[in-house]
Amino acid sequence: MTENSNFRPVDDEARDIAQSLLLEARFGALGVMLEGAPFVTRIALSADAEIISLVSTLAQHTSALKANPRCSLLIGEPGAKGDPLTHPRLTLQADAQIIGRDENLRDSWLKTHPKAKLYIDFGDFGFVRFQVRAGFLNGGFGYACQLSAIDLGLI
Amino acid sequence: MTENSNFRPVDDEARDIAQSLLLEARFGALGVMLEGAPFVTRIALSADAEIISLVSTLAQHTSALKANPRCSLLIGEPGAKGDPLTHPRLTLQADAQIIGRDENLRDSWLKTHPKAKLYIDFGDFGFVRFQVRAGFLNGGFGYACQLSAIDLGLI
Repeated sequence: MTENSNFRPVDDEARDIAQSLLLEARFGALGVMLEGAPFVTRIALSADAEIISLVSTLAQHTSALKANPRCSLLIGEPGAKGDPLTHPRLTLQADAQIIGRDENLRDSWLKTHPKAKLYIDFGDFGFVRFQVRAGFLNGGFGYACQLSAIDLGLI
Repeated sequence: MTENSNFRPVDDEARDIAQSLLLEARFGALGVMLEGAPFVTRIALSADAEIISLVSTLAQHTSALKANPRCSLLIGEPGAKGDPLTHPRLTLQADAQIIGRDENLRDSWLKTHPKAKLYIDFGDFGFVRFQVRAGFLNGGFGYACQLSAIDLGLI
């Protein structure tokens, strides 16, 4: 859990852990605003250099992001063993930018999400880019720190 | 992804899937309001008959829930194989009620989260109860429906 006043200073180890979580991410939990309250769903992700998702315009989170782009992403899935709270994970505060269809993004998306070929060309699917405002790494108990988009390798 | 206008009617199959996800849940993604925007973190969960979490008062999500109890939970983790978007998951819209320390909850928590014995008695840890307002089951592509707390077996 991230701590209000007891964040560690950011160091290279924290940057490395956070950047690895981003590189390995293929999906995450997206929090959007819906009817004035948070609403969390699972989305597919690609987070190499920039954070991209392929979403359906039919999905509640997509219309919610159009109405209010402020959102959050939780990245880093626990393994099957051990206490999930000791596995590192990264919370991002971000703003979503609806892109829609994009041939370059389509090609790179299929490299990391090959199963998406089944639906990527459906008319309701398009891309969203997440501009990260801040990140919070929780590396397990007693290991929490705040990171900038620069620390995360996203700028 | 849940769909605005194309929800299936709730049936026993949907209720069974959702209730199984709850029963099996040991952790989930919690979305809270922080500085006017969503903020998603991982928390431990127990969701048999009522939804309970053990949280630290030092955690950002705990102080955020004290300030604004409206929140969301994403439950149901994908397996290691296949497309995570085809695995069923459940989004809950809920209100958090801070309980603090409770001996009965402590005993039942340790049955489902035995590794928590390492920290459950730390002074900053206590329980939160989530009162569910509504649930959205996404059973994979084209399978989305809205469930009440009664459908979820929580009332």
